[in-house]
Amino acid sequence: MVLEEPRRLREHEFPLPAISDDDFLLRVEMVTICGGDPIEFEGRNRKTRYPLILGHEVVGRIEKIGAEAATRHSVSVGARVMVEPYIACRVCDRCLAGAYHFCREGMAYGITVRSDSPPHLWGAYSEYLYGAPGARVHPIAEAVPAAAACLTSVIGNGVRWVRTRGRGKTGESVLILGAGVQALATIIASKEAGLSPIIVVARGRNPRKLELARTYGADVVIELDREDPNPRIAEALGERSLDLAIECTGAERMMAIGIAALGPFGRLVLAGTRGGQPAALDIDGIVFKEIEVIGGLGQAHDTELAARIVNGRHYAIEEMVTHTFPLRDAARAMEFFMSGGDRTIHVGLDPVG
Amino acid sequence: MVLEEPRRLREHEFPLPAISDDDFLLRVEMVTICGGDPIEFEGRNRKTRYPLILGHEVVGRIEKIGAEAATRHSVSVGARVMVEPYIACRVCDRCLAGAYHFCREGMAYGITVRSDSPPHLWGAYSEYLYGAPGARVHPIAEAVPAAAACLTSVIGNGVRWVRTRGRGKTGESVLILGAGVQALATIIASKEAGLSPIIVVARGRNPRKLELARTYGADVVIELDREDPNPRIAEALGERSLDLAIECTGAERMMAIGIAALGPFGRLVLAGTRGGQPAALDIDGIVFKEIEVIGGLGQAHDTELAARIVNGRHYAIEEMVTHTFPLRDAARAMEFFMSGGDRTIHVGLDPVG
Amino acid sequence: MVLEEPRRLREHEFPLPAISDDDFLLRVEMVTICGGDPIEFEGRNRKTRYPLILGHEVVGRIEKIGAEAATRHSVSVGARVMVEPYIACRVCDRCLAGAYHFCREGMAYGITVRSDSPPHLWGAYSEYLYGAPGARVHPIAEAVPAAAACLTSVIGNGVRWVRTRGRGKTGESVLILGAGVQALATIIASKEAGLSPIIVVARGRNPRKLELARTYGADVVIELDREDPNPRIAEALGERSLDLAIECTGAERMMAIGIAALGPFGRLVLAGTRGGQPAALDIDGIVFKEIEVIGGLGQAHDTELAARIVNGRHYAIEEMVTHTFPLRDAARAMEFFMSGGDRTIHVGLDPVG
Amino acid sequence: MVLEEPRRLREHEFPLPAISDDDFLLRVEMVTICGGDPIEFEGRNRKTRYPLILGHEVVGRIEKIGAEAATRHSVSVGARVMVEPYIACRVCDRCLAGAYHFCREGMAYGITVRSDSPPHLWGAYSEYLYGAPGARVHPIAEAVPAAAACLTSVIGNGVRWVRTRGRGKTGESVLILGAGVQALATIIASKEAGLSPIIVVARGRNPRKLELARTYGADVVIELDREDPNPRIAEALGERSLDLAIECTGAERMMAIGIAALGPFGRLVLAGTRGGQPAALDIDGIVFKEIEVIGGLGQAHDTELAARIVNGRHYAIEEMVTHTFPLRDAARAMEFFMSGGDRTIHVGLDPVG
Repeated sequence: MVLEEPRRLREHEFPLPAISDDDFLLRVEMVTICGGDPIEFEGRNRKTRYPLILGHEVVGRIEKIGAEAATRHSVSVGARVMVEPYIACRVCDRCLAGAYHFCREGMAYGITVRSDSPPHLWGAYSEYLYGAPGARVHPIAEAVPAAAACLTSVIGNGVRWVRTRGRGKTGESVLILGAGVQALATIIASKEAGLSPIIVVARGRNPRKLELARTYGADVVIELDREDPNPRIAEALGERSLDLAIECTGAERMMAIGIAALGPFGRLVLAGTRGGQPAALDIDGIVFKEIEVIGGLGQAHDTELAARIVNGRHYAIEEMVTHTFPLRDAARAMEFFMSGGDRTIHVGLDPVG
Repeated sequence: MVLEEPRRLREHEFPLPAISDDDFLLRVEMVTICGGDPIEFEGRNRKTRYPLILGHEVVGRIEKIGAEAATRHSVSVGARVMVEPYIACRVCDRCLAGAYHFCREGMAYGITVRSDSPPHLWGAYSEYLYGAPGARVHPIAEAVPAAAACLTSVIGNGVRWVRTRGRGKTGESVLILGAGVQALATIIASKEAGLSPIIVVARGRNPRKLELARTYGADVVIELDREDPNPRIAEALGERSLDLAIECTGAERMMAIGIAALGPFGRLVLAGTRGGQPAALDIDGIVFKEIEVIGGLGQAHDTELAARIVNGRHYAIEEMVTHTFPLRDAARAMEFFMSGGDRTIHVGLDPVG
Repeated sequence: MVLEEPRRLREHEFPLPAISDDDFLLRVEMVTICGGDPIEFEGRNRKTRYPLILGHEVVGRIEKIGAEAATRHSVSVGARVMVEPYIACRVCDRCLAGAYHFCREGMAYGITVRSDSPPHLWGAYSEYLYGAPGARVHPIAEAVPAAAACLTSVIGNGVRWVRTRGRGKTGESVLILGAGVQALATIIASKEAGLSPIIVVARGRNPRKLELARTYGADVVIELDREDPNPRIAEALGERSLDLAIECTGAERMMAIGIAALGPFGRLVLAGTRGGQPAALDIDGIVFKEIEVIGGLGQAHDTELAARIVNGRHYAIEEMVTHTFPLRDAARAMEFFMSGGDRTIHVGLDPVG
Repeated sequence: MVLEEPRRLREHEFPLPAISDDDFLLRVEMVTICGGDPIEFEGRNRKTRYPLILGHEVVGRIEKIGAEAATRHSVSVGARVMVEPYIACRVCDRCLAGAYHFCREGMAYGITVRSDSPPHLWGAYSEYLYGAPGARVHPIAEAVPAAAACLTSVIGNGVRWVRTRGRGKTGESVLILGAGVQALATIIASKEAGLSPIIVVARGRNPRKLELARTYGADVVIELDREDPNPRIAEALGERSLDLAIECTGAERMMAIGIAALGPFGRLVLAGTRGGQPAALDIDGIVFKEIEVIGGLGQAHDTELAARIVNGRHYAIEEMVTHTFPLRDAARAMEFFMSGGDRTIHVGLDPVG
């Protein structure tokens, strides 16, 4: 499914790419629509270059693989794997400093590489995905539902924000702002890291999200429209201070709730973006409490733990994918996803559906 | 000099406080007007309780001291010392966690303790200062000019922002936003920590500040009104990335310059406050570069190193104090300070002048 | 029960101490024999000063409390609490830097303060314990068995070694060397922190310890006498590297196992001591893998989380206390404890038993 | 100069290697004999594979370079550069985690790659050195003496031990154990990082080393054979505690001095190795003071700052190279170096000498 230009999604056939020593071909089992996919779909990012095959939340099977790649990834033909969104060039200073999500080549599946020249298959809204030399894969156990496997990189986001960027330590209190897939992944990562209590503030429009928040480990769920959140957060904390807050929506009001709730030395991870719009923050609150406001982007080196969490099957991660469409109906699926129905959370695409 | 109410500064006589085992009395040699003093002078902080003796940037001599205090501070009568602004209650959880600047009692010289009940002398715009049990003192060598000694806690701010909050490491690049005393202290702390290059962006109205910035170790000084700062910063960095920025003015524009200049994983320490006004920050810049925005307040445990820097005499710190008035002219000095003449930086008060 | 000199444990009666504003009296409900108590009992530490009341793993009820202490600890008469071993002087540089376990006064219940002058009751092998101004207490829920409550400070050790000293992060692999109470507490702390896998190497003499290790969360338990531990550890790790090892026995061989097992940048926390005997370590292994060997002592600020773990009742902590004696039989209990029977782990003393 | 087998160093001629897009050829200007070179020369490491061209402390000029390599290194033909010892494979997990000194390929100039197949020139005891795709280079200013430039990677070791592994922060006290080139480099790195005081303990046999220690910034130099070092260290510290010690000799006694001297939470970096021999350490000292003993190996990502220090010309680094021989006399130079004359520190080889 090629996005030829904004809003024009068409079926294309490409020859399967040649696979040599250091790359592979993935037969896509399922891909889910990332919350960021509509940005490219609607052409809201003027840096996007078309034509583009969308899709980077993906699970599939190795169809073909070169010898060197097989050794490096420890996988062989037939292996079930997820593929990380970011592709490392493995040459630039950032890749070699351990930050391949800041790679100077800036390659990421479904986002930055045009599909009009071979190997074409740089996105997972497709039957096959090209596995570049700098791709990173993680084995997925057979027992894991495809929908859960697709969300591995999203769980990786949660791990990054809680552990790597937020430096969350066992026993610390955490506030998660939002209840979409990114926030739900953050709840799971918080639970895994032994944070407690886990407090969630979210709009109450979608009860399924709030249910899942509780299922995944939230101790307290506060509905933004019904209650004044800061007094409720304080009540949930009792005598304790709030150590960590993670903002997953991009809403200015959520940031304000987080800064107000944090205690001295508290940390606020910002994961939600705003399409370039600034947000007004309480600078004095940051200074007088010596708060840290920490940007949290991708999942370099965090997906490894995410894959273990997904394979561990302690959380019904697949329940976040509330609807699945055949890949050929991708345009309809995208419209459905963007319309955000009452009980819709995440949407999957099935290439053989 | 008692600030009886906003803008009413009167001379008062108080009986010298009784000194017992765990406290002391300081004969004030000099006090400088902190950039925050006008807030209390003008009554801009509605939490301020009057009457108040201002002043916490102070050097003096131990006039009287209890046995326990003498042992603990390793000083005796006649010793020349600076006294830190923050007073620890030494009982609350925050003092015992190493963060006495967040002490739940919130006592600080010249800011929070009223002068209308004994021991009265809770501010340094005075001939004597009461040394409470939780006060912290550092010996000052005889060779150090009084004006330099008064600025020890300001240097302590710089140390906190560069080292403790900013986690500045040898060889890192640093951008300092502003050129007032706080920024100048930050330059000194950056130089001491081996940061390089040290780039300063400031308004060019006061050439003396820019001269001192260079004297203290700034490699590049950029005048905000004459040049577009970000291209100049980039040029000064060459192929390198900006690791650390420290904002000392509270100006939204300065924060924007810092966020724009920082590279991936860069840190922006916010030290300037805004009287409660929020500031609009580039959230996407913070997220996409995984920047940390770090509040920097006081100098818990940072003044010890500051005192060594002051005693080391490698920087002509006293040159920041461009004017001195007799203490009895404190009101006039305050007006002079607030009018901020062309070559005025910091102003001292001399109790015997 | 006063230890008048090594091996001479006698019943004494003392007047109950006067309680003023900042202290309290605890009626002891139960105390457990710390693994270090035999050192004082047998006089193996030449710094020990007698007479001494042993005991610092204690739970009880507030019998009497001053107003200030009640506010600070948020407890009132009748409250059930555990008391931390370390007593902060709250004045020295170390207490105020957050490290009261390094307090220059060096006061700790049951270890360092002689009982021959008032308030006498500086140890918990007693009906009452004196709660000094610098004592630290944590409420214990009524549902918690006394034996579990006594072990709160031991769990605090585990928290310190895993979280504070070992910097254990969610998803990291951990090797615990030993299976005594300290090691078992470390397993619990590792589980809470989301470490995985948890691998234990221990001598197999006491099967109950190995059972508890598994109950508390060990994924793999390796018996030192039956198997060559390093190949088994490697097998348990699969393709992963060992991130953290925690040595709880003081045995040189255990340290060697840990260093050999760790991967690059691995951390080895040393918690077991050796009565002054050095141990030969593989220096080249430390250098060539850039390993960190980290001393782990007491539980400053770690007992707070331990108390939450104990109150959370997710682990049958009380099962570590395999035997209980009446306090009046303390000497016999001590001999029993030291003889270390086959299924003995930890021993409690009941003052009303 | 090929080391055909232990102690047999012979002149060989090789064809210059073909240079393609991603590699380069260096014309060697000077190479210095690393303290580790005698290990290979004498065949003391049974893992060494011969024939081998020794040498990895090198400066030279780019003779030929591929387009991609020129872009990546920002250098062109004629540029004067130093080449790091470690070569990154840029594919393995460790290279991509920022730790190329732990690269699974384990390639390093002059140590691990045999010279019997093309491109042959894997060591700098040669007129030319082959610049592999994973080599790392840093420009050296024309004004820098060749002897100083050769020591860039040694300065990089000091930077690693002080900054990266030792986490040395401005104002901290440091003890450096030894006064050879590695220790001298550590003094320079300590000075750059603003550590103070810098205390050195060394054997006094070579007065030139002690002189250089002082020249580079040591505040106190203690001769091991003349004085009892620990009381002298305590005296030099006054009321302060020792924060950091760096052991550069591998001697057990030096480690003991370091552990005894450190205060609570002190860090001891171990950089000296022992040919596989363990060393007895004071475990109780490590535990009771919660000391960290930190292995320090190579200079991944530390050489960049080292190159800036070398180019900055603030230290007469070249004075460490006390003697230079023509390359053709490498065998004699090696014997001279190993005999370690009274005023010999480091020895250079000049290919055109």
